[in-house]
Amino acid sequence: MGGKPSNIDLYYLAMRHTSAAKENRKGFLESNERLEYLGDAVLGLVVAEYLFNKYPFKDEGFLTEVRSRIVNRENLNQLSKKIGLEEIIQFNGHMKGSKQSFKSIYGDALEALVGAVYLDKGHKFAKNFILKKLIIPHVDIDMIISTDTNFKSKVIEWSQKENKVLNFEVTELDSKKHFKKFEAKLFVGKKQISVGHGLSKKKAEQDAAEKSCQILNIE
Amino acid sequence: MGGKPSNIDLYYLAMRHTSAAKENRKGFLESNERLEYLGDAVLGLVVAEYLFNKYPFKDEGFLTEVRSRIVNRENLNQLSKKIGLEEIIQFNGHMKGSKQSFKSIYGDALEALVGAVYLDKGHKFAKNFILKKLIIPHVDIDMIISTDTNFKSKVIEWSQKENKVLNFEVTELDSKKHFKKFEAKLFVGKKQISVGHGLSKKKAEQDAAEKSCQILNIE
Repeated sequence: MGGKPSNIDLYYLAMRHTSAAKENRKGFLESNERLEYLGDAVLGLVVAEYLFNKYPFKDEGFLTEVRSRIVNRENLNQLSKKIGLEEIIQFNGHMKGSKQSFKSIYGDALEALVGAVYLDKGHKFAKNFILKKLIIPHVDIDMIISTDTNFKSKVIEWSQKENKVLNFEVTELDSKKHFKKFEAKLFVGKKQISVGHGLSKKKAEQDAAEKSCQILNIE
Repeated sequence: MGGKPSNIDLYYLAMRHTSAAKENRKGFLESNERLEYLGDAVLGLVVAEYLFNKYPFKDEGFLTEVRSRIVNRENLNQLSKKIGLEEIIQFNGHMKGSKQSFKSIYGDALEALVGAVYLDKGHKFAKNFILKKLIIPHVDIDMIISTDTNFKSKVIEWSQKENKVLNFEVTELDSKKHFKKFEAKLFVGKKQISVGHGLSKKKAEQDAAEKSCQILNIE
């Protein structure tokens, strides 16, 4: 590790959010989005292989689930801040608030950085960088595994594979009468599959989704 | 290219569909699913990088879209048959028809083969294999690009990012009166966004999704 960058411009580009895109000589607006696209794939492979080797007797459902939790937006945003990217990302704050892309500005810059390292130094170096500088020191995989499964994303994934229309209907219950403040009904097509409850909208949906996973036999 | 396999067992395993899983010495049921998980990530990166280099002035939306079309289930199934995997995949036909996993048996085996090549021969070799034996000779990227955008998947992706409930309502119109046999209404939450028409359910949904992409300003 610790090699010097061969192409420093790539790293500058990786820290340039789309809101601060600059026109290059050919009139093409440049930001870190293309590097982010590449870095996302690099990160995906490196984490996939790491888990594949770490858990030789776990099935691919487990590996896929753990991987998606490691590289999800929130995790990458946190990781990005931990390694200090927050302080060097260039963006145009005037556009903040309006744009979807600001929700993942830190994680996207981290992916772009990974893309830059990959282009600059190759697969092996990028793999070492990701594992030794990012994942192993900063990601608590045991904790991630012990956290509850995200049943909502499971049931959504299933509905898309099966081409079914999935729908949640959430209502707020009368809070004086109920501890469980929200009720979520999960429909597949027009058929109600399950009802869940929880103290937040999100938890009620999770509860309904978990029940549906059992009822519909979704692994 | 053309190197001999160092670990031939990996390749046998890659051709073993889950319906023909075998118990190994440690009592763990083995099929190609773990290799498929790994191969999917390898393929994802190699295709991502290939497009990144091939289209230096295209934005990441274009690259992501083209990549997802290249590695979609149907394409991988076809590619797998083209290179002859159909004849060597081992599966248990008695389970066919009932299982979701049979829909992608050929494409999954192709991904597993890529995973096996990657484990056996490393990243560089696997990259050459994917590009020179699979993508360049067998995938018509220009054709893939010129085909219409999949607006339905775009709008679904958007709804998940934004945490909105998306719903299609499709009705068959009276075919004596209408050329456009199906009508699809797209709802976000309870609000109807657009109406589409087409000669099939699928086309009507695509039409509604395309209109919604415009109305909702989805790129």
